[in-house]
Amino acid sequence: MTSFRQFGWASWMGEAAGFGQRIVASIRQRIEAGLDGPGAALPSTRALAAEWGVSRTTVTAAYEQLIAEGYLEVRQGSRARVAAGLARGTGGRVAQPSAAGGARLSAFGRRLAALPPAPAPGVDGLVADFRYGEVSARDFPKLAWRKAVTAALLRPPAILRYGDAAGSPALRQALQGYLWRARGLRCSAGQVIIVNGSQQGIDLAARLLLDPGDGVVMEEPGYALARQVFEALGASVIPVPVDAEGLRTAGLPPARLAYTTPSHQFPLGGVLSAARRRELLAWAARVDARVIEDDYDSEYRYDIAPVPPLQAMDEPIGDQGGRVIYLGTASKTLSPTLRLGWLVVPPGLVEAFARAKRLADRHAPWLEQEALAALIEGGAYERHIRRARRLNGERRAALLAALSRHFGDSVVVEGAEAGLHVVVWLLDVTPDQEAALVKAARAAGVGVHPVTPLHATGVPGRVGLVMGYAGVEVAAIERGVEVLAGILRGWRG
Amino acid sequence: MTSFRQFGWASWMGEAAGFGQRIVASIRQRIEAGLDGPGAALPSTRALAAEWGVSRTTVTAAYEQLIAEGYLEVRQGSRARVAAGLARGTGGRVAQPSAAGGARLSAFGRRLAALPPAPAPGVDGLVADFRYGEVSARDFPKLAWRKAVTAALLRPPAILRYGDAAGSPALRQALQGYLWRARGLRCSAGQVIIVNGSQQGIDLAARLLLDPGDGVVMEEPGYALARQVFEALGASVIPVPVDAEGLRTAGLPPARLAYTTPSHQFPLGGVLSAARRRELLAWAARVDARVIEDDYDSEYRYDIAPVPPLQAMDEPIGDQGGRVIYLGTASKTLSPTLRLGWLVVPPGLVEAFARAKRLADRHAPWLEQEALAALIEGGAYERHIRRARRLNGERRAALLAALSRHFGDSVVVEGAEAGLHVVVWLLDVTPDQEAALVKAARAAGVGVHPVTPLHATGVPGRVGLVMGYAGVEVAAIERGVEVLAGILRGWRG
Repeated sequence: MTSFRQFGWASWMGEAAGFGQRIVASIRQRIEAGLDGPGAALPSTRALAAEWGVSRTTVTAAYEQLIAEGYLEVRQGSRARVAAGLARGTGGRVAQPSAAGGARLSAFGRRLAALPPAPAPGVDGLVADFRYGEVSARDFPKLAWRKAVTAALLRPPAILRYGDAAGSPALRQALQGYLWRARGLRCSAGQVIIVNGSQQGIDLAARLLLDPGDGVVMEEPGYALARQVFEALGASVIPVPVDAEGLRTAGLPPARLAYTTPSHQFPLGGVLSAARRRELLAWAARVDARVIEDDYDSEYRYDIAPVPPLQAMDEPIGDQGGRVIYLGTASKTLSPTLRLGWLVVPPGLVEAFARAKRLADRHAPWLEQEALAALIEGGAYERHIRRARRLNGERRAALLAALSRHFGDSVVVEGAEAGLHVVVWLLDVTPDQEAALVKAARAAGVGVHPVTPLHATGVPGRVGLVMGYAGVEVAAIERGVEVLAGILRGWRG
Repeated sequence: MTSFRQFGWASWMGEAAGFGQRIVASIRQRIEAGLDGPGAALPSTRALAAEWGVSRTTVTAAYEQLIAEGYLEVRQGSRARVAAGLARGTGGRVAQPSAAGGARLSAFGRRLAALPPAPAPGVDGLVADFRYGEVSARDFPKLAWRKAVTAALLRPPAILRYGDAAGSPALRQALQGYLWRARGLRCSAGQVIIVNGSQQGIDLAARLLLDPGDGVVMEEPGYALARQVFEALGASVIPVPVDAEGLRTAGLPPARLAYTTPSHQFPLGGVLSAARRRELLAWAARVDARVIEDDYDSEYRYDIAPVPPLQAMDEPIGDQGGRVIYLGTASKTLSPTLRLGWLVVPPGLVEAFARAKRLADRHAPWLEQEALAALIEGGAYERHIRRARRLNGERRAALLAALSRHFGDSVVVEGAEAGLHVVVWLLDVTPDQEAALVKAARAAGVGVHPVTPLHATGVPGRVGLVMGYAGVEVAAIERGVEVLAGILRGWRG
């Protein structure tokens, strides 16, 4: 034990540059904040290592320290658990945590501090970074956008004043039409709320609907930043497994909210079947829950018919509207740097969302809203989407071909029918090799990003990579896959 | 009683178009949410009428209805109070409130629904709207901004990816220099957090620092949208009177946070004296509180020496920094439509704010950040501020001259040394005439905005107008004051 521990500490100091201490602080804070009660099982060292992007040795050392401090205990051969004698906020042998370095924070702030840190930002100059959420600047409709921006700047209002919290009337009207044409989504312009990207839509919905302790159904695996919003608010995340038909809706437990990606499950890519859509909406009506439909990449479909949104099946309750809060974004069609997204909320929630948006930041910036409205009204937005779909179709084809050429039967590709990423299961790689693979790939200039941290609990018994391709050009895709294959070939001897 | 009540209802239906019902719903929700416990006094009808912008008759009718429903009770000659027998969440004769129209909301959502609605937005075509927070588009540095925006659009990064949650490195660096040159504020670029306007800065700070029930010291009168943020989070707002030297800091009660405008108290214009600054910081250290310094309009000073920020007097606690969270904005220097603001936070809070910003909306939009950074680095921002200061100095002089010419000794002007508004106390107008004056002025094409709704409790025993002038041109200022004077002359006969 001692020698292992010494090894752990050595590794920590050398390799992980302070990450081990942050893991210790984070777990302490989760326990202090009451997020993990006595007896709660901690994630496996593998899962936590993946989530933080460190080696398992670092995590093991952190667990050892917390055992020494009395926060955790472990029985022979089983997972580490929160010490049974540990009540919330106890003093005694439990040292006071220095939440966020000594500053007294709210419960929200302490829960936030206990979440894993943001991943290191992407850098230029790699052979290929298959990072989901990035978009190539080559696809961006530069000329149309510059024209729209310049036109807006040339005709400013006479008085510069705060705008409508729900968004620019022109953009709300334009999106109402676009959503009907592109998605068969019927709503009034008044139901459209402009937000700073889908992240703000999730945050506002969570603040308006969730109290600490409320249950939230989340797809497992699922979108980590949504999960973090719910956890930071003190909600209780209920992970529900997904399969090829999306979220498994049979026997959902009562909850206040469900977060779903019905058109293209993130990350595994399943499309929620019609039967499950009906089951999900019936569940929401039965337990009085709302459903967030994050339609984050439905613009990208290849060789398959469009899937109508869940929102279109939602039955209105009187004049209050239904249970679905629809969420769209320009991050995948134009750029994540714009920070533009939109909610379509039931009529009974419009006022609440507008008020929450006003207190959060008054309203979205005027310029981007005007420019996007002009782009949509002039037809350039939909022309651009057709072009981006073609370009991303070429990237997708290149990725699938390269995977087939270099990996053959040693990989299984999932969720390739739609969106801007695929999940690649590496059949020849064992879970304990995952961290080393990520590290070796990065050293060779290739960014790969495992499925593992998208799991709330447990980890898959296999190694999968979420391979985003919208930010990588065809030649780099081919080169990146080749490099990755070379690394694995080298491992096998 | 009956006849009065009938009059009230008639007025409600005719004049207030649903406002009465919203007031009823709002008070019901406050009581249901436990914000006002049994025995709590309600605001006077005058204060509530001012807050909602309706006639006192409408408020009286709303109170009557709530008395009939058993929510309120009133003893001879005294204020309406929450009924003594009314416990939180009781059923019985208390009808279930339809929070936000039937939707089940979180405690945050219910508190939000109980706040006064946003004021009606400004409209074009008035003779003059002395609305605080508006800025003339004529002052905007159109050419420099268009050049900066176009330059940014012409050199986008190769990969469009999510940016740093704390903001663009270029803008944080530029602001660090600007704040030092313009405000004598010393910080590292790493302490600067870019937010979507100061409203988001207040919201993030409140979320990170306040739990429901925590005390927040607020200037009284003070900035209503800050107060609403704190109330929506369930904090307990402690109104502390201000005078010509700003917040009265003697004997401040314990609290977690103080929200202050030390350079130019909003709305009354006092400058927090050096002694009070020391007292405020000593209080914060004693009770372990943080202080938000909202430096919302310090760029505008006329004939007085610059006042260094409170932040500059803040003593660091070890390497964690001090207690002041500094807040600046481009809303007054460039435009409120940009939604750009910045926090300077103590080093120990940088990580917490960056995490909160990331979960709230990832980061501020790229384009505005790049353009402002270029504007500052190229010197155009400070040149523009000098020009805007001169133009607003002309507006201010025109307003003061017109007030003197048309009102003479019947007004007292307060807070004219700095900023973009003055407070005008109308000595000849009695509090019960306030609502009628606002209405008559509006009918004559002049927007005036009383001090009253900026009070959390009680109201001043006199009538004051917050007269913003940055969005009004000199000729319109003169005409607007003349129209206002004419109305009052007509009243006196």
